[in-house]
Amino acid sequence: MNRITISQAAAHTGETVEIAGWLYNLRSSGKICFPQVRDGSGIMQCVAVKAVLGDEAFEKLKRLTQESSLVLRGKLRAEQRAPGGFEMDVDAFDILQRVPEETPYPITPKEHGPDFLLDHRHLWIRSRRQHAILKIRHEVVKAVRDYFDSHGFTLCDTPIFTPAACEGTTTLFEVDYFEDEKVYLTQSGQLYNEATAAAFGKVYTFGPTFRAEKSKTRRHLTEFWMVEPEMAYATLEDVKNVAEEMICFVVSRVLENRRAELAILERDLTRLESVKAPFPRMSYDQAVEILKKKGSPIEWGGDFGGTDETLLSEEFDRPLMVDRFPMQIKAFYFEPDAQRPELALGVDLLAPEGYGEIVGGGQRIHDYNLLLQRIKEHHLPQQAFEWYLDLRRYGSVPHAGFGMGIERCVTWICGIDHLRETIPFPRMLYRTKP
Amino acid sequence: MNRITISQAAAHTGETVEIAGWLYNLRSSGKICFPQVRDGSGIMQCVAVKAVLGDEAFEKLKRLTQESSLVLRGKLRAEQRAPGGFEMDVDAFDILQRVPEETPYPITPKEHGPDFLLDHRHLWIRSRRQHAILKIRHEVVKAVRDYFDSHGFTLCDTPIFTPAACEGTTTLFEVDYFEDEKVYLTQSGQLYNEATAAAFGKVYTFGPTFRAEKSKTRRHLTEFWMVEPEMAYATLEDVKNVAEEMICFVVSRVLENRRAELAILERDLTRLESVKAPFPRMSYDQAVEILKKKGSPIEWGGDFGGTDETLLSEEFDRPLMVDRFPMQIKAFYFEPDAQRPELALGVDLLAPEGYGEIVGGGQRIHDYNLLLQRIKEHHLPQQAFEWYLDLRRYGSVPHAGFGMGIERCVTWICGIDHLRETIPFPRMLYRTKP
Repeated sequence: MNRITISQAAAHTGETVEIAGWLYNLRSSGKICFPQVRDGSGIMQCVAVKAVLGDEAFEKLKRLTQESSLVLRGKLRAEQRAPGGFEMDVDAFDILQRVPEETPYPITPKEHGPDFLLDHRHLWIRSRRQHAILKIRHEVVKAVRDYFDSHGFTLCDTPIFTPAACEGTTTLFEVDYFEDEKVYLTQSGQLYNEATAAAFGKVYTFGPTFRAEKSKTRRHLTEFWMVEPEMAYATLEDVKNVAEEMICFVVSRVLENRRAELAILERDLTRLESVKAPFPRMSYDQAVEILKKKGSPIEWGGDFGGTDETLLSEEFDRPLMVDRFPMQIKAFYFEPDAQRPELALGVDLLAPEGYGEIVGGGQRIHDYNLLLQRIKEHHLPQQAFEWYLDLRRYGSVPHAGFGMGIERCVTWICGIDHLRETIPFPRMLYRTKP
Repeated sequence: MNRITISQAAAHTGETVEIAGWLYNLRSSGKICFPQVRDGSGIMQCVAVKAVLGDEAFEKLKRLTQESSLVLRGKLRAEQRAPGGFEMDVDAFDILQRVPEETPYPITPKEHGPDFLLDHRHLWIRSRRQHAILKIRHEVVKAVRDYFDSHGFTLCDTPIFTPAACEGTTTLFEVDYFEDEKVYLTQSGQLYNEATAAAFGKVYTFGPTFRAEKSKTRRHLTEFWMVEPEMAYATLEDVKNVAEEMICFVVSRVLENRRAELAILERDLTRLESVKAPFPRMSYDQAVEILKKKGSPIEWGGDFGGTDETLLSEEFDRPLMVDRFPMQIKAFYFEPDAQRPELALGVDLLAPEGYGEIVGGGQRIHDYNLLLQRIKEHHLPQQAFEWYLDLRRYGSVPHAGFGMGIERCVTWICGIDHLRETIPFPRMLYRTKP
């Protein structure tokens, strides 16, 4: 018997095949019942007829409980009204494990609270909606990697254990290393990227990053994935162009390959279809002017709040790039604008529809003396940054890069409310299980 | 001026172009000098003639120091004797940053000790050999991901912060979470993979894993990357077949795309070319018999030492698979062999040439009662495993998977001695910097 996955049904119409999965749903009416079976690749509506299966087997199937595991054999038929476009006429089946009535599958079609669902995350991911979100996550990750791999970037994984902080230690997780040594979990691979970019020209790192922020909002995770490209011989303009091109590529891949999942999420496709280059670009100066006109209390020199980000991005149907921020709200390593040294050559990319910042980056200081001055001004321990200063001692060049948070990007593309649904097992302030 | 990367030279022969990089090496003889320039994508031999550049510029270039950054313009010419097959006749150049003679680039062609090189890892990666190894690492990672992405596996990133240990807590790194809570850094995503496999059918996780082992050998890193696929409705045989197919795919990709890098490492290509299916397979029983004949002190029931692994694999020109191990040397979750319940349905894959185990995996217990019994026998806290037991309460099916350590695989493919050279910034017992 030829076992196929449900996603392969189209290539096997008219054939008798076997599928192996779990009972997702079941309707019955008298002498016929319609088990819906999921196998991870899709959902298949099956048609089981008492006259075909015999009384005993039919009753067994009709009374099967949700999420019981079973293997079915039967002939495939195209059927436009069925969820995936195909139906199986069941000839025979085997039940592998029947979920007992007394201890039924805990997630039912009724509403559950978020804590209950998060406590059952290991099962919740079987639900149609969560399944769709995580399939889109996979597509986004693959698209991001494919983009960089096909544009001359070398993957250079940066370390998770780091001795020093990139931007202060208050939001760092501390790890007990050997012999009472302390190390910290990375918040960004950027400083290391600058070293690998000088070795490989164009690089990216893509891995988990950590932030010990005591925030309990729908936008915070303590453990999240980030992609960070870095380019030698590159400037702020290159960062804007690469970020724009990469995001267009990612969105077009999702539109191409994940239509069914976007439909399950009831995503407005026109919103994604309008994500095309060129993205609108404005300076921080212009952004502050616009915000003031819209009634924001922001003053020049201040950072954008979430509301400011929404006010700015609501004007546009695609991501907005804002650049040249006041130096005092940016990290020590930003290259200053040559004309106006009070401005940092940084850029933030704000997703449309109020999804906020998904990309942040810019050009790094390449002059040794200026970098040393900044390290001192920021009261950073110079000794810990000697290796980073080496990059300016030995063949320093203009270089630039950015970081994109994967969960933020997926949340926006899915058009959903909560970051926590975009990662298989979210880690938050009060959530480290399962 | 058209700026290209050195790797694009073939498409621009006869054209006048610009390259931007770092001085890798320089020979000169009178009125002509030959700067070798690297840009991360390759190395270009350049020809600079005094009569073309003028006295002053020629002297400047001739005296340029190693790793100084510069941009060169000139015409490309095919030249078989040159390292990359092309040469540039230099018309003009700009030096971006000159490394001063008084503080020269610290890594010179002379021999350096391993500690010195590891202290300068941020620069060492610019060396030809390290560059080649990390390019092969990139190729391996990409091939692994491409294999799973094109064979119906869904990427499901498993968490780094874990509440409980998979196999005991002695080698776990502890993290201070919020409010005095302790969490641990993952050693394996397997238990979570079993949950996602029940939701997606076939899954893989690919990320950093951590092991707090006080070993200072050439095979140990505290932070290393691992890929772990898991399949629902699958058995030990499926694991062997997928591992074999994946490894053949990875090796063939490296042979296809990384010839130049393998040549730099002086890798014996015939060794890699013989890595073809079918791989030899034997049982643990058979392996013990062979080892005894070869004089190993091993007795039935014991685990293989490094020497045993070498003794076994030296018989073969491709990876060897050994399966069905005594239950007492395997983790609690292994499915027992139906005929001989004292054997675990696990498999180890030993790389040839004495490189040892690179894959370990097998079939997991799917019966609720047996799993519960094992959790008790191993004195594991049942409460912490309730979510894992849920996977056997709600639609349990036979399932299986494996893990492959990326650095071990890269070490073998590169044919090198030390794991630490296969990751950009290695973390070891006494090594957390740079």
